[in-house]
Amino acid sequence: MREHINYCSNCGSKVTFGPVPDDDRPRHHCEDCSTILYQNPNMVVGCIPIWQDKILMCKRAIEPRYGLWTLPAGFLEFGENAEDGAVRETIEEAHAEVEIKRLFSVYSLPKVGQVYLMFLAELQNLNFSAGKESLEVKLFRQKEIPWDEMAFSAVKFTLEKFCEHQFDSRPEVFLGALQPAT
Amino acid sequence: MREHINYCSNCGSKVTFGPVPDDDRPRHHCEDCSTILYQNPNMVVGCIPIWQDKILMCKRAIEPRYGLWTLPAGFLEFGENAEDGAVRETIEEAHAEVEIKRLFSVYSLPKVGQVYLMFLAELQNLNFSAGKESLEVKLFRQKEIPWDEMAFSAVKFTLEKFCEHQFDSRPEVFLGALQPAT
Repeated sequence: MREHINYCSNCGSKVTFGPVPDDDRPRHHCEDCSTILYQNPNMVVGCIPIWQDKILMCKRAIEPRYGLWTLPAGFLEFGENAEDGAVRETIEEAHAEVEIKRLFSVYSLPKVGQVYLMFLAELQNLNFSAGKESLEVKLFRQKEIPWDEMAFSAVKFTLEKFCEHQFDSRPEVFLGALQPAT
Repeated sequence: MREHINYCSNCGSKVTFGPVPDDDRPRHHCEDCSTILYQNPNMVVGCIPIWQDKILMCKRAIEPRYGLWTLPAGFLEFGENAEDGAVRETIEEAHAEVEIKRLFSVYSLPKVGQVYLMFLAELQNLNFSAGKESLEVKLFRQKEIPWDEMAFSAVKFTLEKFCEHQFDSRPEVFLGALQPAT
């Protein structure tokens, strides 16, 4: 979600929204110290953890979408590779160890400023359990996937493409976007 | 690059760096209004514009890496899909019209907080010219690529993978990372 920017993070003065030098779009900027306060979209990184014919999913213990099902995913941190972020989120949300195989889907949510990068991953063992952001973590066969209790459109898109294309020999990356955004 | 955060963007108070509730890592936060000031990595989106057996590249007219060659790419804006950002950057830097075919590479620069998403694209016509951030834009055959005058490691990685794998029938996405970062 776009943050409110009222004050300059550099000098603490009130910021202005409007034209800035050498740019074709208005930005929040500080007239006192000339800092431009960019609002960039964020990356959400996660994975489809596979065990035999099953997928590991997490039931959310936090808002938004408390009680709905998702794949392990969260915001990439500064200092991380995209794929390492997906591994970390899987540990945090499902206490599950995965090995990343490849990027599977890229899904943009322009209105909320997010891009999901979802990786295909192999679950390494069955020692998983709910992390503090999950009520429950569980393996689902494809026919058991809780389509009507899905937390996020990016997760639904990714699982739909997985169900349709998992046996394709060509490892395509699926590009999706939600417009208008949630 | 990680920005300096001295003041709260919400209320203008001095910020503190340290532990915050329900989080396992220290964050910049405001003790007056409880705002957490996250520092997230940014996405750079761009493309490999293909015309027959040639690739369109741009010679940079701005710092960093003034005078070196790059592929058209830049920061994704809030409100854009990833692929639309790549098209926009190609228009801005090379006044070139492209059609995106697929995602080609994802390259992380963890130390500077960037992830490149580079798409394969078809140049639609030869009506290109230098945008204001470019000194020159030019089509290169593979053997003409200026490897010793490359602006960014992500661009070099992407072009190397393109030269090695462009004729593969499997449309794999190449995952790369620079560690330590530039």
